[in-house]
Amino acid sequence: MSEESSGNTRKVEVVPSPALFPVYFENTDCVVVVIDVFRATSAICAAFESGIDSLIPVATLEEAVEYKKKGFLVGAERNAEVVEGFDFGNSPLGFKNGHFKDETLVLTTTNGTKAVEMAKAASKVVIGAFTNLTAVCDYIEKEDKDVLLLCAGWKGRFNLEDTLFAGAVAKKISQNLRFTNLSDSSIAAIHMYNSAEQDLFEFLGESSHRKRLSRMNMEEDIIYCLTLDQSNIVPVLKGDVIVSNKS
Amino acid sequence: MSEESSGNTRKVEVVPSPALFPVYFENTDCVVVVIDVFRATSAICAAFESGIDSLIPVATLEEAVEYKKKGFLVGAERNAEVVEGFDFGNSPLGFKNGHFKDETLVLTTTNGTKAVEMAKAASKVVIGAFTNLTAVCDYIEKEDKDVLLLCAGWKGRFNLEDTLFAGAVAKKISQNLRFTNLSDSSIAAIHMYNSAEQDLFEFLGESSHRKRLSRMNMEEDIIYCLTLDQSNIVPVLKGDVIVSNKS
Repeated sequence: MSEESSGNTRKVEVVPSPALFPVYFENTDCVVVVIDVFRATSAICAAFESGIDSLIPVATLEEAVEYKKKGFLVGAERNAEVVEGFDFGNSPLGFKNGHFKDETLVLTTTNGTKAVEMAKAASKVVIGAFTNLTAVCDYIEKEDKDVLLLCAGWKGRFNLEDTLFAGAVAKKISQNLRFTNLSDSSIAAIHMYNSAEQDLFEFLGESSHRKRLSRMNMEEDIIYCLTLDQSNIVPVLKGDVIVSNKS
Repeated sequence: MSEESSGNTRKVEVVPSPALFPVYFENTDCVVVVIDVFRATSAICAAFESGIDSLIPVATLEEAVEYKKKGFLVGAERNAEVVEGFDFGNSPLGFKNGHFKDETLVLTTTNGTKAVEMAKAASKVVIGAFTNLTAVCDYIEKEDKDVLLLCAGWKGRFNLEDTLFAGAVAKKISQNLRFTNLSDSSIAAIHMYNSAEQDLFEFLGESSHRKRLSRMNMEEDIIYCLTLDQSNIVPVLKGDVIVSNKS
């Protein structure tokens, strides 16, 4: 038992960047929540809510091209834009009309799908966003394992919105006494969320990625991504494919 | 010019862990502030305040042993304890009696001296702690370069106390309009510091490292490390040696 562990409680650790995942990933029998609020994980939740069957996350554009050649519907985003030649990007609003119902999609994004790839060795990998916050927390409590809240960040850097969501999860699950072994990063994320929760949109006004998206007229996406509990589905990784926990 | 940069202002970025330094270190013409509040950088500041001439930081115990063989006064700390066979560890209170006056010391610690080693390629590397907060901020403003606030953390993990100090620096220097290009990590650290500054000791009550040191009866060290502006010296790296900015 490590010095940080305290008996019967589960560890809850926020991983501030995928580059730190190897440092925090000590126990493979854990739940990893992959977080990329703007916008990959919000988009994946929206896709499942709109009725897709499954989603194959891929880390590179090369893999995405291969799937496209095989006839898959493939989404690709780099630097917040749809990559030319692909069917969609990572805007969650693009899934609202339900025209991907029962389809299998393939997706690669700047940060989020790389984080999924990295987490594959964990026993459970799920997709989290403000839009499925309560469902993710319920899932974690039911699994009853140590938890890593993996922030996708921006090209390895810490970002505010992913940390805020991690703080929201840590705050909610730590009300259950099983989940009270909090890392410093979790304590910090909860403090952040306490400062922000009254108005996430306002709080993120100065964040780098909100400014980046605002410049690109993506305010509607931002509002969607910051609206809590629009879905009760938890997308979960099964082998190399993400499926709904309801299926 | 990168998309994050905004004209004439300097970037201020908190690096939450040494493992993220390569991600943030884009411009070598910057000031890197190495931060290891509990206790390496607080100890280095205390050593200079007590009148030492210079300090050679080394990353490994092997190097420390070599210096010891050559007759140097050598300090070594691992996991918060003095390593057997060395002259001192990283307790700042150990320097208060002034018996190292005008000496050159050698020091290796679990996190802090490794972070110094990592930062060497930057044009300016300085040592920061709550005990020399104002002096560090004055130094940064005078240098007028981009700033990286490098948190030594704990074995690659994010920690609260180093982030709080980074937040204190970012808050103070961003009152100068030259230093208003804040990264997400700086915004987060300033929020943290705002929540904590009324009572740092109380705020850190749940932090992993304060608990670790409390278990080892190091409360007196903690209080010392959290007391602001006890020194107006900024230890600066010159080649491989740290010297006082006043010498």
